[in-house]
Amino acid sequence: MNKVLVVGSVALDSIKTPAGSVDHALGGSAVYSSISASYFAPVNVVGVVGDDFSKAHVALLKKHGVDTVGLEVAKGKTFHWKGEYPEFGDAKTLETHLNVFADFDPKLPKGYETTPFVFLANIHPGLQSRVLDKMKKPKLVVCDTMNLWINITPDELKTLLKRVDIFVLNETESKMLTGIGNIIAAAKAIRAMGPEIVIIKKGAHGATLFSDGFSFSVPAYLLESIKDPTGAGDTFAGAFVGTLAAAKKIDKAALKKAMAHGTIMASFTVQDFSVGRLAHLKKSDIARRFKEYVALTQL
Amino acid sequence: MNKVLVVGSVALDSIKTPAGSVDHALGGSAVYSSISASYFAPVNVVGVVGDDFSKAHVALLKKHGVDTVGLEVAKGKTFHWKGEYPEFGDAKTLETHLNVFADFDPKLPKGYETTPFVFLANIHPGLQSRVLDKMKKPKLVVCDTMNLWINITPDELKTLLKRVDIFVLNETESKMLTGIGNIIAAAKAIRAMGPEIVIIKKGAHGATLFSDGFSFSVPAYLLESIKDPTGAGDTFAGAFVGTLAAAKKIDKAALKKAMAHGTIMASFTVQDFSVGRLAHLKKSDIARRFKEYVALTQL
Repeated sequence: MNKVLVVGSVALDSIKTPAGSVDHALGGSAVYSSISASYFAPVNVVGVVGDDFSKAHVALLKKHGVDTVGLEVAKGKTFHWKGEYPEFGDAKTLETHLNVFADFDPKLPKGYETTPFVFLANIHPGLQSRVLDKMKKPKLVVCDTMNLWINITPDELKTLLKRVDIFVLNETESKMLTGIGNIIAAAKAIRAMGPEIVIIKKGAHGATLFSDGFSFSVPAYLLESIKDPTGAGDTFAGAFVGTLAAAKKIDKAALKKAMAHGTIMASFTVQDFSVGRLAHLKKSDIARRFKEYVALTQL
Repeated sequence: MNKVLVVGSVALDSIKTPAGSVDHALGGSAVYSSISASYFAPVNVVGVVGDDFSKAHVALLKKHGVDTVGLEVAKGKTFHWKGEYPEFGDAKTLETHLNVFADFDPKLPKGYETTPFVFLANIHPGLQSRVLDKMKKPKLVVCDTMNLWINITPDELKTLLKRVDIFVLNETESKMLTGIGNIIAAAKAIRAMGPEIVIIKKGAHGATLFSDGFSFSVPAYLLESIKDPTGAGDTFAGAFVGTLAAAKKIDKAALKKAMAHGTIMASFTVQDFSVGRLAHLKKSDIARRFKEYVALTQL
């Protein structure tokens, strides 16, 4: 089966939401997306952690078949993010400590460079580019980002986008990047920057994929309560890429199924802090939720 | 075919949006919903207009097979609403002149009382109740409302809800009515007030139907530009009821199809001011958009 290479942040998050809080819990875009993708395809992860990073976290990734040879252990502390969701709106960042990420120069373990599917999870676009530079003709490059990079590194992001096949971002970010409020028009403008396909996420309101003459919308899976929205977008993208890596062919049907898998996997993530729910799913949990999702959305 | 009785407002609207403006254009919840429903089932309308109401507007309704015998012409001016959409957010009401609606006592023309499907379009819940009082064992009662009535006549609305089968409202209204932010929990609370089925509309983010152990979500049909959102909710509900009236059986499949028809009909309404687009559709326009909607949403 096709493998997925994921590069992104590996973090220890301290998060407060109306449902509770966690301190230095496992997080980061590469973690959420690797575990999410791992339910559909094998994953190689590239990232950096400090010498304070628990071996149990590495073991958890390995348990999901994630190859962690590319997870560099550097002297110092793991990337740390502290945030708060006052009313389940957008996260309010309280503290960001780059720590070992400040000097990270990604190296690819031997063999990683031919991984056919690449997911550039949310991280500095310069790092995303450097990893892509080392890849040998990937079959598909999917990229995520966040408002921060659109704000402070727009040129690096735009340079990167020319080499990306599928770009995932949220509605607010699509407006920031293009200055266009309507998502059809914004997607068109982003596709003109390079990506053949653009996916615009709308949080609790689902997501829409835009391709050439083809669009596909998914509503969110409905949940009666949410504990922590952190990692929902990363989880969506990870399952999306994993599903495509497992597909025989990347056609409309595969893209649609990947959107649905992204949606339901994200719904597991927000049901607990950190990867509390995401990392402990059985295949049958996913199959059951997929079936419920079909009932919820299919005529 | 089953007929639909619609009671609601018939208005002359003066509206300003970023896309333009209209002065004293045909509007009102009964107008949007009657015309929308008329594409699926024949309609009897109950309402009141002033002696300033253009015969051309009545002719337009008749052209859609809407029986206008129940449209009373009273001495005075037609209900007038003046509103503005600053940035396609919620409407800002500038003026409301009830005019002939102030003293309206709905009378049902002979034969209307046995209309099997009843749609209580957005209007004072006291009026909605009085019309329902005159009906003889309707097969299905669908009801819409707005924030105003939840604010100023909550008790009358709650009394009415005990007699309603399907209640349609938007997300903000569901929160106002229940004090609950989560839509699953809010829908549960509203269903406990009487309606077997609750539909929560989310504007540009689609809608979800909640029944006993069954939910169904529809994303919105995507549009690159919107001229005027006025009447979208009325149009949705009108098509929803019309579709059910035309169905052989009110089962899950019929409810799902009705949600999809509601969504696509609303998408026509917002493409022009007043009923500029809604009132001039061919069956083939609706069929084409339905096909596009299936492609947009079905796996």
